[in-house]
Formats: sequence, C-alpha cells, structure tokens
Amino acid sequence: MMPQINISRLHNFVTESRKLFERYLGELVEIPTVSADPAREKDILKGAALAASYLTEMGARAELVRTEGYPMILGHFDASSDDPTLAIYHHLDVQPATPSSDWLHPPFKFTTTMDGHYLGRGTTDDKGPALAALFAARFAHEEGIPINIKFIWEMEEEIGSPHFEAAIRSKSADLHPDSILVQDDAWISRQKPSITYGIRGLMTAIMTLTTAERDAHSGLVGGAARNPLAELCQVISQCLDPLTGRVKISGFYDKVRKPTPQELKELEKIDFQICEFKKAHGLRLLRVEEARRIMLATWYEPTFEVHGLVGGYPGSEIASVIPHKAEAKISTRLVPDQDPVEIFELVKDHVARINPEVVVKLDSTLAPYLTEFSGPYAQAAKEAIVFGFDLEPVFIREGLSIGSVASMQSLWPVPIVLLGLSLPEHGYHAPNEYFDWPQASGGIKTLVYYFHRISKGIA
Amino acid sequence: MMPQINISRLHNFVTESRKLFERYLGELVEIPTVSADPAREKDILKGAALAASYLTEMGARAELVRTEGYPMILGHFDASSDDPTLAIYHHLDVQPATPSSDWLHPPFKFTTTMDGHYLGRGTTDDKGPALAALFAARFAHEEGIPINIKFIWEMEEEIGSPHFEAAIRSKSADLHPDSILVQDDAWISRQKPSITYGIRGLMTAIMTLTTAERDAHSGLVGGAARNPLAELCQVISQCLDPLTGRVKISGFYDKVRKPTPQELKELEKIDFQICEFKKAHGLRLLRVEEARRIMLATWYEPTFEVHGLVGGYPGSEIASVIPHKAEAKISTRLVPDQDPVEIFELVKDHVARINPEVVVKLDSTLAPYLTEFSGPYAQAAKEAIVFGFDLEPVFIREGLSIGSVASMQSLWPVPIVLLGLSLPEHGYHAPNEYFDWPQASGGIKTLVYYFHRISKGIA
Repeated sequence: MMPQINISRLHNFVTESRKLFERYLGELVEIPTVSADPAREKDILKGAALAASYLTEMGARAELVRTEGYPMILGHFDASSDDPTLAIYHHLDVQPATPSSDWLHPPFKFTTTMDGHYLGRGTTDDKGPALAALFAARFAHEEGIPINIKFIWEMEEEIGSPHFEAAIRSKSADLHPDSILVQDDAWISRQKPSITYGIRGLMTAIMTLTTAERDAHSGLVGGAARNPLAELCQVISQCLDPLTGRVKISGFYDKVRKPTPQELKELEKIDFQICEFKKAHGLRLLRVEEARRIMLATWYEPTFEVHGLVGGYPGSEIASVIPHKAEAKISTRLVPDQDPVEIFELVKDHVARINPEVVVKLDSTLAPYLTEFSGPYAQAAKEAIVFGFDLEPVFIREGLSIGSVASMQSLWPVPIVLLGLSLPEHGYHAPNEYFDWPQASGGIKTLVYYFHRISKGIA
Repeated sequence: MMPQINISRLHNFVTESRKLFERYLGELVEIPTVSADPAREKDILKGAALAASYLTEMGARAELVRTEGYPMILGHFDASSDDPTLAIYHHLDVQPATPSSDWLHPPFKFTTTMDGHYLGRGTTDDKGPALAALFAARFAHEEGIPINIKFIWEMEEEIGSPHFEAAIRSKSADLHPDSILVQDDAWISRQKPSITYGIRGLMTAIMTLTTAERDAHSGLVGGAARNPLAELCQVISQCLDPLTGRVKISGFYDKVRKPTPQELKELEKIDFQICEFKKAHGLRLLRVEEARRIMLATWYEPTFEVHGLVGGYPGSEIASVIPHKAEAKISTRLVPDQDPVEIFELVKDHVARINPEVVVKLDSTLAPYLTEFSGPYAQAAKEAIVFGFDLEPVFIREGLSIGSVASMQSLWPVPIVLLGLSLPEHGYHAPNEYFDWPQASGGIKTLVYYFHRISKGIA
C-alpha cells in the first residue's frame, strides 16, 4: 500500500527548508567550480566534497566516483530493490566568470535580495535546481515514497562532459535506472513551463593560422605580409552569412530532420513573447523579429558561431601591428540527425578549400537528442508541474546541448525527461546569473509529486 | 674659414664615446616611455627629464616644451646666427611591449650582448639613433663646425603626434631651420643603406557593433541572436581581399600617384633579398614572393589591415557565448596623394552600405609625404653615408608613417632628409627589438660629415 502525499506536511517542509536551502546554495556558489579553468581544480574538489556532505546530511548515501578528470558525485536515496529507480542528473561545475563592470555583484559572492533572488555564478546553472531536487528527495524518502532515487552530479558539464560516459558506465550496475530525469534547462517564461523532448548537439573547434614568427610593423611589411586575422575573417564569412544565420558549408544541412506537423502544432501553443526573449537574454537586435522563426532558429535548426578571435595587440588602443598568428574559436549547434564528427569534417574540408593553411582542430562534440513527448513519463512530468506551479507546461525542443543526455541514452535505453527549473531571465552563462525561491520551492513540490507519481510504476 | 673634419680626432671620439653611449641608452631604455599607455605618464615625464639632462651634459641648451599632451624636448647647439640651421627630429616614446614568451629578454631591461647588440624596447626606435645624433652634434660643436643644430625630441610619435604641430609652431621663431633631418627609419639591409624620399600616411579607426546588453548562451539564443563578431568578419572581408591585399573599398585607389619611371629605375638598384626581408621581420609566408612586387606593395601602395578583433570570451578555452559587442581595430597605410580623412570617409561609407549598424570611429591620421631625391641635401646625405659606412645608399620610398614629417613640411617649407640608422632585423615595433654599436658608431661619423657638409651652405 503506497502512501499518498501529505500536502500540508509538504507545505511545511518547503517553508521550513528555505533557510537551509539558502545556506547550502550560498556555500556551494561561493566555491568557483569553473571546470574550464585548470587553476580551479582545488575548488572543483572542494565543491564535490561539500556536495557529498549535503547528500549525507539529507539522508542519502554519498559516493565520489573517480574519473580521468574531475570526480562525479552519486547520492543514493534507497527504497526497496522492488521499487522503481530514478536517476536524476545535474551538474555542479559552472561557466567561467570574470568580475567586470557587467557583473553588478561579484560572480562568486552569493547574494540574496529582498525579493528572494539568489545571485551568483552557478545559482541557476545548475546548483540551485540540484539542491531543490535534493530537498524533494529528502522529503520523499522521509515520507516513505517507494522509489529509489539516484543523484548523479557531474563536475565537467561545462567542458563537454569528457569523462561522464566512462563514469556512469563504471557505476551502471548500481544505478540501472528505470527512467531518467535531467534538470539543466529553462522554461519559456515564468508563466510558461516547458518540458524538453529534444536538445541540440554541439561541435566546438579552433581555427588557427600562423603566417610569421612574431607580430610585425604594418608600415614596414604591410602590403606584402599576410594578415592571418584578416584571412580568418574571410574564412568565417565564407562559413556563415551572419545577417541571416545561413551556414554556407556544403552538406551542412543535409541530415537535418525537419520538425513534424505535430511538433509544429505544439509550437502554436506557445505565446512566445519576442520582447521577453530579448529582455531575458539582453538582446537588442535579432536576425528575425518573428516569434515562430525565432523558435525554429533557436530550437530546431543548427547554427555556426564565432566566439572569439585572438591575434594582434589585445590592449584598448590601436597598435598597428600585423599579427603573426590568429585563432578563431567557433562552434556549431547541431540538430537531429546531424553528427558532430561528420560536421567537423565538413567544416574542415570547407576551410581547406578556402584557405589550406588554416588548421582546424576539433575541441569537443555533443550529440543532439530527440525523443517523443507523448509517453507516460512525459505525462507524469506535465502533471507534476501543474501540481507544483499551477501552470500548464508545453513540450518543446531546446537549443542548448547537454552532453550527459546522449551518454545516458546510449548506456540506458530508458525514458529521459528534461524538466528544468530555470527561467530565461536567470541568465544561463551570462553575467548576473541568478535563481529564485519561487522556482526552488515550486520545484521541490513538482519533484515530490513526480517521484510519487512514477513510484506507482508506469504502465 | 671653415675647419675641416679631423678624421683621427673623430675616430678617437667615437671609440671613447662608446661607454657613455651605452650608459645613456641603457638608462633611457629602462624607462618605459610607452605613449599609448596612459599609466606610463610618469615614465614619459621621467624620460623627457633624463633626455634633457643628456643634452645639457653634452653641451647643448635643453628646453622642455609643454604641449596639451606630453612635453617635447629641444636641444640647441648654437653656432653663429649667420650659420645655417639644421633641425633634427627623433622621438623618445616607444611602442607598447608586454613581456611574453616572444621576448627573450624583458622589454624594458637593457641588455648588451657580446657582439655589441643593445636589446630592449626603443633601442632602435628611436632612442639609439637619437643618442648617436647627440654624440655627433657634440663633436661637431666642440670642433667648431659652423652650424646651428636644433634637436627636436618628441614623446608622442607612437600615438600619431597629436600635439607635435602645435608644439613646433609655438617654437618656430627659435627653430626656423634651413633644412631638416629625420631619423626614424630603417635601411634596406646592413649592406644597403637607404635615404628615404617618401613615406606612407596612416589612418587608424575602430569599428564597433553592439547587438546586446551582455554576452548570451549560444545554446539558448543561437540562431536568432545576431553575432557582432561574425558580422565584423563579414565587413572586414568586404573591405579587403586578404590573400591579394587588394582593398575593395570603392574609390580607395583613385588618388594613388603612380611611381615615375625614374623611381622605378632606382628600385632596380636594390638587390632586394626576399629571404632577408622575411627573416628580418619573422615572416614565414608572403602574399607575393617577387622582390619588385614586395617593394611596390610595402613602399608605393596603400594597405588595409585589421590589427585586432575584440569580443566574446578572451580566455584560452572556448566559452560558447555569443558576444554582445565586437570591435575591430583597423588601419590603412596611405600613399601620395591619398588624403587620410577622405579615406576614412570612404571606409565609413563603404561599411555603412554593408552593415549600417557598425559604428566607424576615426582614431588618428598621418598624411603621406613625398619629395624629390635629386636635391643637394639628398646628395650630401649620400656622401655622408659613404663617409660613415663606406657603403653606397639608394633612394627609396618607405612604408611606414612619420607624423612629424608632414607637420614640419607644412610649417617649414625647407628640404627634409630622412636618413635612418636602423636595420630591418632590429625589429621596429616587434619583440626583441635591438640596436647595435656598428650602426651607432657609423651613424655618428655619418652625421658629423653631414653637419660639416651642409654647414658650407648648399648651393
């Protein structure tokens, strides 16, 4: 006989948890777990140890899994071996953040505002949602909801999850989930929750061109000397029409799977506010100002971006040197059924045709992911959001890439539900990132419901 | 009755001067007189005071001329008011230099090698030549050579000489030269001295495009968000074909004065070694590998260069953000009769047609300069080099820009001779810049001869 959710106890639990939630989040945010920065190794390890201690304090069995890179943290809330098992994925590493005038508060100083906003790098991506899920699991465990919950907390998500697959493979016998929940994405808006059934993949690469031993005086050699920065500009503008976003690399779109009529119909349910989208991400200008086109361009279509060009004199003044070397950091977001490695080869071949001396080096890949949105777990997630937030969610694909999803999908062919708690205005990867108590508290309720709902067993 | 040069006394003077020359140069180089860096203001003032003290120690009247920016230093070696007056121009500010793996020695630590090389930022551009001229003037003065020598030492050459014209105008009554000597350029090679009769002008500008308030996550907004860095790449590749160097801006070449048959004939005297040129500037690859084309492209033709692109994440890893703002630092080297401000307007109009949201801001301008190479001062300079170095010079135009030349030419319509002492391998504006004693000592002799030769009065 399975116990029902005691609504008033849940309410009290959420209210009483706020202080501790804030203490946990604050401590965790103030450790700069920047996986991309090798100088932060100690902080990553410190963050992992702290997270493991939270799991223990909340009643779970905590486990640090060693990898070739940074450790992965597992947290087991054990019920009976007959009960279903849910794996929940989060990551506790964060994007780089350099204090600058863009940050109104120091990125690694946790700040709570009067209106329940939690400021700091990593608050929404993904430490806040991870802790909300932890509190939900504690409640479910204490209430005896018959479900085994396995937390999987990664420390290398922001660098493309290079050791994640090996790590979960090594622990597969312990984990063997019946379903998977991933929390690492954002809703459409505060009023429009979303459940994600598809995400884009990613391929990042670096283009390098070296034409001299050292920077040279443009007066003395200008005209005869090659300018690698100007040549990379040419290469990039032959890869992409930046005004339309159209990628010019031949074969690039060949394997793009077109959205089905059913998918396009789901899009119509979304009252996509261009204004809100721009405000949330701080965008002044867009390539297109039409809601449907924006959703298609960011969720259903691939991109080519340049993220940085290095070369020449980096100071604020102009030093009229001709750079000896230039480097372009590029990425493509990919959609089903594009293959990241195939796309890399297409980029490489394309660049070789334009400028054979440019070296293109693969940096990282993540496969795109796509599932159905009609299954029972998706329905359970939908009901859970209605319970937790009193809002009706839509099913969408999303533009970002979550490396762990493809890895888990290939290892465990079980349903995966992507149910994030973040909002666009929280600022994933942006300055002034924040999370908030309404999303955390609603999230705890949502997850308790979800645990309860799927613990019954899904037909 | 004018005294002749006492060759053996000159010889002894040069030999005995070496120690003091090295001390002066060392002290001066170790003051980082980087005019482009506002944080170096104190160093500029310290350098100016030190230079003035050298003038006094060598027997000149020193004078610091205040400007709206950094002071200019004058040094007067007075003969009689009936004697001709020569103004000699140098600058004592230097290019920025950041210690890096490219610098084998710290840029602002003066180092003397066994073979008489003087290492450090500013050794050849232009502190070493300035001090060589100072020693020559001291000898000429002590020997009673009847010539008034007026040193003009600028501290703002590397930032485009913004206050030079006003400064010399304010002192024009004191200076009123009969001819001008400028030392701020390099020979063809150690074996092939050159006298410069034309230099290119310069126009530097900054292109800026802002499309958002802050950098955004390319997964969340990629496809719809504009990428200002990619757009600037497109703009630049529509300004320049980087593989040929051809500038695509309409009207850009309209006012270019073609070299005369006589000028082209002078080029034939130059045994231009592509290998040496590449080695001197550390260039591995060139746009053209033909000597005549290289000389034309670097000395007689205008250029368009991009010196740096700012935007996105500056670290060494890839952060897949879409920059909110991008900035391109560009310049054009200009030849007679191109006008820098007209060229800026052409660039601006061209960019506005490609991408109207890109803001193009003028940073600095320098007019190109061109004179004849058949006059008596040019001949005197030629004889002086034969005397000082036992080498036959050629007359060339040069690729670099010297702002002071245009200013002096407009204020004092008298002959200007550009007779540098630097060599290509000394590395103007490059890491590991150096000067050397053979060029300094030969330079002292050359200038003593030149002072003597023109003191007779030129027909």
